[in-house]
Amino acid sequence: MKELNELILESYSDLTDSRLETLLEGREKPVQELTDAMRYSTMIGGKRIRPVLVLEFCRVCGGDPDHALDLACALEMIHTSSLIHDDLPCMDDDDMRRGKPSCHKEFGETTALLAGDALEAYAFEVAAGADLPAEATVKALRLLAAATGPYGMLGGQVMDIANESADDVSLQRLQATHQKKTGALIRAACELGCIAAGAEEKQLEAARDYGAALGMAFQIRDDILDVTGNELLLGKPVGSDAEEEKTTYVTLLGLEEAEKRAKDYTGQAYEALAAFAETDFLKDLTEMLLTREK
Amino acid sequence: MKELNELILESYSDLTDSRLETLLEGREKPVQELTDAMRYSTMIGGKRIRPVLVLEFCRVCGGDPDHALDLACALEMIHTSSLIHDDLPCMDDDDMRRGKPSCHKEFGETTALLAGDALEAYAFEVAAGADLPAEATVKALRLLAAATGPYGMLGGQVMDIANESADDVSLQRLQATHQKKTGALIRAACELGCIAAGAEEKQLEAARDYGAALGMAFQIRDDILDVTGNELLLGKPVGSDAEEEKTTYVTLLGLEEAEKRAKDYTGQAYEALAAFAETDFLKDLTEMLLTREK
Repeated sequence: MKELNELILESYSDLTDSRLETLLEGREKPVQELTDAMRYSTMIGGKRIRPVLVLEFCRVCGGDPDHALDLACALEMIHTSSLIHDDLPCMDDDDMRRGKPSCHKEFGETTALLAGDALEAYAFEVAAGADLPAEATVKALRLLAAATGPYGMLGGQVMDIANESADDVSLQRLQATHQKKTGALIRAACELGCIAAGAEEKQLEAARDYGAALGMAFQIRDDILDVTGNELLLGKPVGSDAEEEKTTYVTLLGLEEAEKRAKDYTGQAYEALAAFAETDFLKDLTEMLLTREK
Repeated sequence: MKELNELILESYSDLTDSRLETLLEGREKPVQELTDAMRYSTMIGGKRIRPVLVLEFCRVCGGDPDHALDLACALEMIHTSSLIHDDLPCMDDDDMRRGKPSCHKEFGETTALLAGDALEAYAFEVAAGADLPAEATVKALRLLAAATGPYGMLGGQVMDIANESADDVSLQRLQATHQKKTGALIRAACELGCIAAGAEEKQLEAARDYGAALGMAFQIRDDILDVTGNELLLGKPVGSDAEEEKTTYVTLLGLEEAEKRAKDYTGQAYEALAAFAETDFLKDLTEMLLTREK
């Protein structure tokens, strides 16, 4: 990755962090435990991939990324909300997240449950307050909610859990699961940026195609890293998929074929970018996500 | 309560149920367990007080209740979402809800957790699709999200939980808790109806005042029924507050004074209705909620 693009990535990520800090400043003493938990899990780190995609797709559609910032933060809060609930004892029961205690380990189970709920609601409040024409805001909100709900990310989580106890998970089923579980928010990120810029339908479609291909490549990379990754870099245990006898792209396809598929999807992602001008940064970002070690 | 108003109440409630049935028809086989759980808990019954308030406030502001219907359904889904999570083992650990197994008893804990999350997201999707001018939709969504989030209902839940382990809960603290926990959505219901009708700020304020007073009266009545109610009518055990040594309006004020306060708030609710025409139904509804046995 070139140095200039690293700087752009950093500046988008800093812009997001700074806005999230402001948005998540607790405003009322009696609910401080709740707002502390919301902020803790949101600010614990993470790659901010989704916000970066929102901001950059806004820019490549000719919009001002500042106008997309609250949509970017809303999306990141919804993502965080799902991670908080994912870590709960009745779900994955994970004590650690990004190298730190998970929300329920730090704040207790009830507060973590409610912090996830509250982050989800607050995300929609923030998105509804975005500095955009009302029509664009409504369109963004429908998309954001659909990407989150039963036919989006949350549906994918239910499918993922069902897969765990299934005797046999086909490649088709695994793909359908990830297209919802991780793919829905990544596709939404790209589309939200376009909506904030007031882009035409053709660009929205290309952004969706890019997001779909990137999401698949991203997930396959995740599965590969669970086998080949470095625990210190990842900030989480390696080999947990195998231990849980989870079906992944690696168990279904083997390491080599999984690597090949990830590269294929990356190629599809590059192709979709043809609908936009000035895509150097997006191309480098795509490359970086494919070759990442954490 | 007069017979005509009973019919109006029934027709609003039927309208809501019918729309909720349509909205909650599962659209995708792979996520059917999730959509089944969402529908189960939403259609299990309940008084539909919040949707009725949305629809009637729209009417008394001169609007067509049909245009407020999706906002009414969205609000009811958010309410249901909170009940599903409330019943979870890490919260109140309730096996029964409205005389039937609670969501996690019927579908398991992970599905119940995700069904609550998905209902919340889906509520915002439905609200964003309301048949209203974009400006009104954005205003409604901001209000709905704020009423749900950390400074609304969910903040109230955290305060309520903190109250349980506190040595001493003042009347002021109890009121602040309920103004968020149950009051926020009831106030929002009244305001959403006005927004759907395109009402002026003055009527919005009056609707908020009415909702605030009604919410307090409603909560005090809840506390009273937990002492004096009939288990069969309520569909839940009586005396649970005392068993859990919970601070309520009854423990702080005694039965007689609690009844008096409920009447005072009802008076305030009546007064707020002066800003609207044709309030016979709202007056009867207020009276019914104060004297209800379930």
